[in-house]
This record gives sequence, structure tokens and C-alpha cells, in this order.
Amino acid sequence: MSGFAARPLLSRLLRGLTHPQVNPARLLSLARPVLSFKDVSSYSLRSHTCGELRAVHAGEDVKLCGWVQFQRKQLFVTLRDSYGVIQLVLPQDKNHADIKQMLAHLPTESVVCVQGVVQLRPIGEANKTMCTGDVEVAVSKVEMVNKSKTLPFQIRDFFQVNEHLRLKHRYLDLRGSQLQHNLRLRSQVIMKMREFLINTHGFVDVETPTLFRRTPGGAREFVVPSREKGKFFCLPQSPQQFKQLLMVGGVDRYFQIAKCYRDEDLRQDRQPEFTQVDVEMSFVDQRGVEQLIEELLQHAWPDGKGTLNLPFPRMPYKDAMEKYGSDKPDTRFGMELHDVSDIMRSSGVTVFERLLKDSPGNSVQAVNVKQAALHMKNKDVEKLQESSKQTQPKGLSVLSVLPGGEVKGPMAKHIGAPCRNALLQELQAEEGDMLLLAGGEHLKTCELLGRIRIECANILETFGVQLRDQDVFNFLWITDFPLFLPKEDGSGWESAHHPFTSPHPDDTDLVFSHPYKVRSQHYDLVLNGSEIAGGSIRIHDAELQRYILEEVLKEDAAVLHHLLEALQSGCPPHGGIAIGLDRLMAILCKAASIRDVIAFPKSHAGHDPMSGAPSPLTDAELQPFHVRVQPESS
Amino acid sequence: MSGFAARPLLSRLLRGLTHPQVNPARLLSLARPVLSFKDVSSYSLRSHTCGELRAVHAGEDVKLCGWVQFQRKQLFVTLRDSYGVIQLVLPQDKNHADIKQMLAHLPTESVVCVQGVVQLRPIGEANKTMCTGDVEVAVSKVEMVNKSKTLPFQIRDFFQVNEHLRLKHRYLDLRGSQLQHNLRLRSQVIMKMREFLINTHGFVDVETPTLFRRTPGGAREFVVPSREKGKFFCLPQSPQQFKQLLMVGGVDRYFQIAKCYRDEDLRQDRQPEFTQVDVEMSFVDQRGVEQLIEELLQHAWPDGKGTLNLPFPRMPYKDAMEKYGSDKPDTRFGMELHDVSDIMRSSGVTVFERLLKDSPGNSVQAVNVKQAALHMKNKDVEKLQESSKQTQPKGLSVLSVLPGGEVKGPMAKHIGAPCRNALLQELQAEEGDMLLLAGGEHLKTCELLGRIRIECANILETFGVQLRDQDVFNFLWITDFPLFLPKEDGSGWESAHHPFTSPHPDDTDLVFSHPYKVRSQHYDLVLNGSEIAGGSIRIHDAELQRYILEEVLKEDAAVLHHLLEALQSGCPPHGGIAIGLDRLMAILCKAASIRDVIAFPKSHAGHDPMSGAPSPLTDAELQPFHVRVQPESS
Repeated sequence: MSGFAARPLLSRLLRGLTHPQVNPARLLSLARPVLSFKDVSSYSLRSHTCGELRAVHAGEDVKLCGWVQFQRKQLFVTLRDSYGVIQLVLPQDKNHADIKQMLAHLPTESVVCVQGVVQLRPIGEANKTMCTGDVEVAVSKVEMVNKSKTLPFQIRDFFQVNEHLRLKHRYLDLRGSQLQHNLRLRSQVIMKMREFLINTHGFVDVETPTLFRRTPGGAREFVVPSREKGKFFCLPQSPQQFKQLLMVGGVDRYFQIAKCYRDEDLRQDRQPEFTQVDVEMSFVDQRGVEQLIEELLQHAWPDGKGTLNLPFPRMPYKDAMEKYGSDKPDTRFGMELHDVSDIMRSSGVTVFERLLKDSPGNSVQAVNVKQAALHMKNKDVEKLQESSKQTQPKGLSVLSVLPGGEVKGPMAKHIGAPCRNALLQELQAEEGDMLLLAGGEHLKTCELLGRIRIECANILETFGVQLRDQDVFNFLWITDFPLFLPKEDGSGWESAHHPFTSPHPDDTDLVFSHPYKVRSQHYDLVLNGSEIAGGSIRIHDAELQRYILEEVLKEDAAVLHHLLEALQSGCPPHGGIAIGLDRLMAILCKAASIRDVIAFPKSHAGHDPMSGAPSPLTDAELQPFHVRVQPESS
Repeated sequence: MSGFAARPLLSRLLRGLTHPQVNPARLLSLARPVLSFKDVSSYSLRSHTCGELRAVHAGEDVKLCGWVQFQRKQLFVTLRDSYGVIQLVLPQDKNHADIKQMLAHLPTESVVCVQGVVQLRPIGEANKTMCTGDVEVAVSKVEMVNKSKTLPFQIRDFFQVNEHLRLKHRYLDLRGSQLQHNLRLRSQVIMKMREFLINTHGFVDVETPTLFRRTPGGAREFVVPSREKGKFFCLPQSPQQFKQLLMVGGVDRYFQIAKCYRDEDLRQDRQPEFTQVDVEMSFVDQRGVEQLIEELLQHAWPDGKGTLNLPFPRMPYKDAMEKYGSDKPDTRFGMELHDVSDIMRSSGVTVFERLLKDSPGNSVQAVNVKQAALHMKNKDVEKLQESSKQTQPKGLSVLSVLPGGEVKGPMAKHIGAPCRNALLQELQAEEGDMLLLAGGEHLKTCELLGRIRIECANILETFGVQLRDQDVFNFLWITDFPLFLPKEDGSGWESAHHPFTSPHPDDTDLVFSHPYKVRSQHYDLVLNGSEIAGGSIRIHDAELQRYILEEVLKEDAAVLHHLLEALQSGCPPHGGIAIGLDRLMAILCKAASIRDVIAFPKSHAGHDPMSGAPSPLTDAELQPFHVRVQPESS
């Protein structure tokens, strides 16, 4: 309960319930409009919300409902509802001793309904840090609605509670102002998106089924046994097939706030069920979809978060990998990758010289971590080395830049002066900088240094070097992805995104001759280093789709017969995108995790500590579904 | 393709591609605004939609994309998109022979993009039955986008296709104007609801989880095995617990268009997944929720469906049962039930006399099926008898009213004149009416005749007697339900709705003494004989909730420990409602089944004939979930 100003108690005591003198000039200056345009007291037992009372309400008889937040010396109670807090003044006369007795002694977080008159606080006693700080309500009637027990933690924002306890009592955590803000902002952003899509651009909100058939390669789909023995539904990872079928069905402009499911090891930013803003359009090209999303985000962008400049910048996948070592680069800070292969080819550093000679597919990449030598300790560098060695056994070569252009580090004594100078120049290195080099297969090396670049930023920020401004929103389209990638085991090709992605129009012929060279019409939208949306122009030609499924991907096209048949039935050219709503909201709310923008998230481990889900079922409960838990031996 | 008027072909041939004379007066009169306020061609490859072209567009070069709907004599092609149809005129000069060749011979339902100039049709050749019938587009360029194969059925609304085939090729069925209309209206109604709830009344759209813990008594919940051996999620039948927890969490005004799941034998109006408009408010009473819903429906009510008069009428459950024999009465027609116990007590009809003597809980009920004797055949009456005998072995007593107040029927010879006259007067019977009587336990007899009342209406309507006007919307609140009902097996009590329903404030003490006498604060909203919404004021007192769970319902309260604990943690009084969106939309769209207002419904049998869901999974696919299909022997 921040900002509760100290004030002279005696004068208050003497004043009792009489109205204070009203200073008309002050009244006028405080006649601010009520914060919300919404009628949040309609159909309600209250006449006003706690948060809306202002000087203009002085003299009004009001009915308020809320939670007892704070009690002070049997004189004042702070009452909170979902819209703010107001100070209640307890009656001090004997006739109302019962009111005072009840309100002063109720456990905090108990629920009451009170009636009383709004009065201006005495001159000089207003609390400027409270929206309602000019007034208070002299209570004349009270109804105790629900007495609270002692809670496992307090509803105070500055109170740090471990996340498991917060999730177990999520209904209490939700009362805090941060989650209240996040959930309300989420609702507003979605509503603005709907207005833009439906009211302005004629999109149709269509619900697609979540009980569907298993899709090929759907390894992470939840299964749902049906009452037909041996037959299962699956919870789809996205409405991909349905949205394409809607295009075939002439819906033309579809969107849905879609619940999606992915059964996987939960990482920081994953939940088994998550939400995407799912969009698909017929008769559109890549730039059309991109422009729609740019203007959608601009329209839905919350007040106070700056304005978005359109169009968003664009970067081909290849450039992103070579400049940032990532297909979702955080462009809020520099420290870009530099290809120093030519410099290192005859540097005297044998390891680099050798790997560059070994294969034309190898390269040496370098990053200049500005001023890192001033901050980073040995253990930080060791951490970076350890992390590097997960993908590159040789790790990083580290050079600290000393005064006068000297360098320090394991490699320093091998490196020739011309090479050293060329390196310093290429990386625009100055005293205090730290140069990190790695070599090996080109893309993998870029990826490694891209990862190290982010880890360096994380480390430097712990030292107070601010690299990534949370109030800056850097959007970036990544385009021209490869359509196919070699499978991990080298046995063939797999789709870089999904098998319905259309090849780049310039590369269509290459599908049949050199599939690995084909660029796709896939596009990702990156915000501050997070992929927040991804989509593509889809294949609308049945023959091309069949060829890619059967001949390139070597998949069984039979399970997708309905889609192939649909493509033959007059399928319009179409494309779409899905925005990861949870992640977008987490960035907008500056939340550490998407769990903080979801009302009832699962824990890290995929559990609901509140209800205890998932939970055991008996054989009898499983009987109708004709399944049983595997016996121990299997 | 209705309304394609015949027209002189020769004049068209001679005219070729030259622009016809424009009659300025005619141009003015046709300058109607484009139908939609929405910019449905934004971000698109088309410049206009097929449906929007009017005389004012004459002379404009347009780009259109759509489906070939109809071809006539190598002269004209009707092009359809999601917004309407337009006539294309094919070029007849040799330089454009390729255009003519392609468009005239493409299979219908192929997709093309065309470019051309809008021209007025010659004077006298406008087609007034088409929105775009004043103009046509002279094609100068065409791109064949997708050639359609021969389709399993034609995209014509008058074409009757069996439902299985339609579901198997749902993407084709969706192209028809009926499903297009239904899906678009659904999207609009939901959007208007959102505007009312969010923008006007400050509700917060909160997504609640669909992977949850099994609830007690959740016999029809789908189960979802997790990767933790032996542990399962369930797909909830409604967000009931979450919405109550949101109230405890101070969200205050929650709503969600919620996907719900119920694993049950599919009846006409059921789907395994369905959608409800889910609402919950804190600090509200029953009338507050009712009023919110009334004004919500009034706001969202589609144009052309009349206006809703508020408030909706109300009827206690007991009255509905006694007047209509149903807790969801269709009040669009009369034929109410009459209690004729007093008349039949000494009627000479032994069966009725005896059962009335047997128990004070028995009654005799009668319905006057107006003018039924003029229409119904013996076999219709036999059908009613058969149906009655499902619940009442003695069936119905049937009396036809003859001229002069005589009656005919098996009972006629037993019934005394005073009794007969009293009966005719009570039922306001006239010549040609048919009186149906049944006796037995009071409520069961009412229910039986309520069912028969509807069956009679169904039969009479097959004879062209219109009883139920599809353009009339009769809303009715049913209130004062019993809180508990005796279990089928007589072993105790169960909740009439759900265990979180609050008792009527006047009956709270009876919970502890005479639970069967307690009325609840549950309310149903009935529209034309369908329950389209149901809700209640909830219990917010932990002790009362625990008592009802443990002492009245004899359930294990432990699985609901989180809810009971939440109620102890400062739970506000709260209540809510859920609108069955599918059913509401089906009534608004005059659809025979909710399947016609769902984009991709399951069939009667719970299957998706398009994808083949549900489908078999291999042991390997089930392995990660530690379940297997029960062996044949078990």
C-alpha cells in the first residue's frame, strides 16, 4: 500500500463524521474525468467503483464493494476493488460503534459492502499519490460479505513470493496489480485487433475444431481417446489445415484467436496450451500479409508504448544469420558478427588456418563485445567458453584489447601484427573491448556467435551496462528462408517450416532439380529478438503439393488426401500468418515469462499446482475410452 | 445461379467490346452505395470484389479474383467471389482469342484472376435480380490460377446433397451461400457481444485452460494422457471453476467465448466440442445478470430479426412445468396443460378415479389440441400413444370433440355428462378439437403431456398448420428451480444444476433442515422452446459450500479443496451465466441443426468424415503417453 501519506490524526478524530470545508477553487481543479469510459458499475450492487471517486463526487451517497486492504488505528480503512482504492473513514460516535468495531477488526482481504457519503479530505491532507486521494468516504452502513482467513501471502506488489506458491494460490496472485494489468491489457489488445480485422477489413472470426485427426509428423500432439475402441482424436498444434480449407471454402478472410496445443518439454516461454492470432487470406501475396500485420499491430498497439513506424524493416534469412547469427535477431544493440575468414587465413593461428584450408564451407567469425574487458570477470569468460563448447569443441578464441592496439589472450602470441591490425580495424576495436572468434562450418559458427552475442548482453546487463531498452520495440521481418533443410540424420530433406509453404516464385523450377536451393515464401516477424509471428504463402497447386510431400519429403500423402483433394477443387492462392499472442503480450507487459500474461498457466513442469492436474485416473474411469495405463513391466 | 435473365444475344455479339451508351439518369438512379462498409479488398490482389460493382463503376479498370460459376455460349462467364457475382463479357476479337478460349472452357469452380473494364449493360438488359446486374466487366486479361477437377457435388444452394457427402467435402459445402451467411452472421453477433461487454461494460476477456483436472462427477469429460505415467488431464465441460476463481482473483467482470467439451452420445443438437458465451460478475444479484444478458442480446441482435422487448418475461420452474410440462416451454403457441384432477375425480372413468384416490401426489392433466381432429390420422394418434407409453404405460386418453359438444373416443362411453361438460369448458373445446388426457405422478404427468404437446405441434405443422413462427423470438426466463433433486436410484440428493449454485436467499435455512424444499438462484433463458442460456448466483461462503458438498450431496470435497480454500480467501458474492452460442445461432439462422452454424462440425456419430478423425494410433505413437488400447479380452 504505497503512498499512504502521514497525516495529523487528532484533527481527524475531532472532526468525526462532519463534512470538511470545501474549497471551491480546489474542487474545480480536481474535477478530472473518471478514468474509464466503461460503465463498470452497471448491473452491480455498487454505485461506484473504489477507484473512480474524485472531488466532484463530494456529497454523494455511494455504495462500494471491495476488499479490506489496510486498517489504521480504528480510524481508517482502505477499501480496494478491481478499479482502485479509496479511504473509508470509520464513524467514531457510539451509535455506530458496531460499524467501527467490524471494519476495524476484520481480517484484511475480507469482503465488505459499505454505504457512505463522499467527502473532501481536509485542506492539506489530500494524498496526491492516490487517484482518489482528494476524497474519502464516511461510512454509515456496512455489510460483511465474506471474512477472509489468513492468507498464505499478502496481496502486495512488492512482496516477493516463490512462483510455486503463487501458482498454487493463483486466485490470490491475480489480485495483484501486475497480473490485473497484464490480463486487462491482453483483453484490450485482442479487442483492438478484432476491431481492425473484423470491423475495418471484413475478416470473419471462425472457430475451428480442436478435436482433430493426428497429422503426419505430429510427434508433439496430445492424444484424446474416443469412446470407439482404439480410435483417437488429437489436439492440433495449430489450425493450419482448417484455415487453408476455409480458403478453399471461400471464406476469403479468416481469423481466429486460436487455442493451440503442443505437448513438449516446457521451456521458459512455452506452455502446453497457448494462443495465437491466426490469420489467413485468399488472393494475397507475401507483402499483402506483411502489410496487414504491420497495420494490425499499429492499430492494436497500446497507449503509452510509443508509435510503430511502418513499414517494418526486412532482412533475408541469410543476412540475419551472417550479421546476427540468428533468424530472430535482437536489433536493439550492435555487436554484429564479422566474417574474418580472409584475415585469419594467414594469421599464424594454426587452428583457423587449418579449418579454412580444410573446407570452403568453413569460416571464421568474430564479435567485438564493446568494453567487455572492463566488466567481465574470468568466470564470465569461462561461462561463455563452456556454453560454446556445447556446439563447438574448440570453444572461443578470446582477445582483450589493450592500450596502443596490443591484444591479450591465448591466441595473442601466435597472431602476426598485420593480421592483428586488420582484425582491430574490421571490428573497430578500442581499448577495453573483448574480441571473440570462432571457426568451423559457416552457418553453425554464425549460430554459435549469435548465441554468444546474446549471452554477452545478458552478462553485461548484470553489470549495469544497458544494451536492450525494454521501452524500444524493434520489429523486423525475416524473409527468404530455405524451403527445405537436410534432416538431422542426413537421410533426406525436411520442411524448414511446414510442408504447405510455397516456394519463392523465382525458385519454383528448382524444386524439381535442386530443392536445397529453393527459398520459401515464409516470413517471420521478430520483435526484440523473439519470433512473435510466422507465416507463409501456401501451396495452392495440388500437383506441386503432392510432389513435395511424396518426392521431396518422402512422406505418405494419403493421410492428407482431404487437403490434396481440396487443392484440386478450385483452391484460391492464399497465405497467412499466426501471431504468438502470449509472447507478444509478455514483451508488451515486460514480463519475465509468458506465465505472467496467462490467467491460469501451467508450471515449468507442466503442472497446475492449484488443482493438481494432471492427476491419476482409475481403471474404471479409463474404461469408457478402452485404454489403460501400461503395466510396469513394459 | 438463379435469376439469370434471358437476353438478346445477337446485339451483344455485334456490340463486341465497345462501351454501350450511358444513360446519365439511369446512372444516377443506380448509384447505390457499396453494400459493405468494410474494406475487404485491402492487402489483396483484387481491386474490387465481384459483388460490389455498380453503375458508378462504369469505365473503371478493375481486377477481380474468383471462381468460374457459369459459362454461356462462349460469350459470358459469371465470376463469383465471397462477396457476390459479376458477369464477365468475353472478348470476341481474334487478338484475344486465347482469353475467350480459356474462360469459355475452364471447368466451373476453377479459380481465375481477370482484368477488365466495367461497362453498363445495354439499356433494357440489366438483370434486376442481381446486385451487380446493371453492369458487366469486359475482360482484357486473364490468369488461370487453379483449374478445378469435377466436383462431387455442385455449389448450388438448391442442390440437395446428403449430409455425409457434404461433411466429407466440407470445404465445398462452405462455398454455398447458406453456410457463408451463417458463419459470417455468427462472427458478427459475437463481435457485437464483445463490443457490448468489453467496450461498454468493462468486461475482461480471459482465456481459461482447457487442460484441467478431472472434476468430481465429470463422467462425460474427455481424458488426455500426459507424459507422466498414469496421470491425465481432462477437457472441461465448462470454465465453471476458473470463472469463479477469477472472481476471487478480483477480475470482477469476466467473459470468454469458451470452447467446451462433452463426451456424450451425440443428439441432434450436441457436438463433442461446443462454444459458450461465458460470463461472470462479482457484486451482482440474479436480476443484475438477467438484465445484462437481456441488454447484451438486444445489442447483438442481427438486423432484420425484429427488435427485442425488454425485460424478457419470467416464469417460475413450477409454473412452467404445470402450464407447459417443460422447463423450456415454447411459448409461441398455446395448447397449455390443464389440471383436470378435480373434474376427473368422480368422472366415471375408473382409471383416473383410482389413481387420484391412490395418492395425493397424482394428478390428471389435459391438453386441447385445437382442430387436431380435422388433420390427424389414426396413425398419428397411434404414434402419440406409442411415444406416451415410454414413460406412462397406460398411455393417453383421447377424446375428439364432435358437433354439439359430444365426444368420441375409448373413454367417451364411461364419462358422465357433467364431467364431460366441465372438461369441455375447462379446455374451451370446440368441434374438431382433440383432447388428450393423462394421469399419474404430478410432475411426470405434466412432463409427459409437455412432450406430447410438442409432438402434436410437429405433426400439425406437417399438415400445414403453422403453430410456431420462425420469425418470432419468444424469450423467457425460467427461475426458482429446485436446488436438489432426488437421485434416480433414490439413494440421496444430487444438484439440479451444479453444486456451486446458491440457494434462494429466502430458503437458506431450509438447506440444513429440508434440502428438497430449497429453491435455487439458478436461471435459464429459453428461446422458442430451446434452453439457450443458464446460470446462477454462486455460493461464496466456504462453510455452506462444504456443507452442501459433504452433508447433502455426500461427495468428497477434497478434490475441490482449491475452490473451498479460495472461498475462504475473501471471495466476493458473484454470479454468471453461459449462453449456448451454437444453439442461439442455429435459431437465428433457422438452421435445422447446430452443425449448420459450425465451420467443421462432427457428424451425428461424432466423426469428421473429411479427415477421418478419430483414427487409430499405433502402440509406438501411444508409447510416450504410457497408455495402450485395452486388449480384446478385457
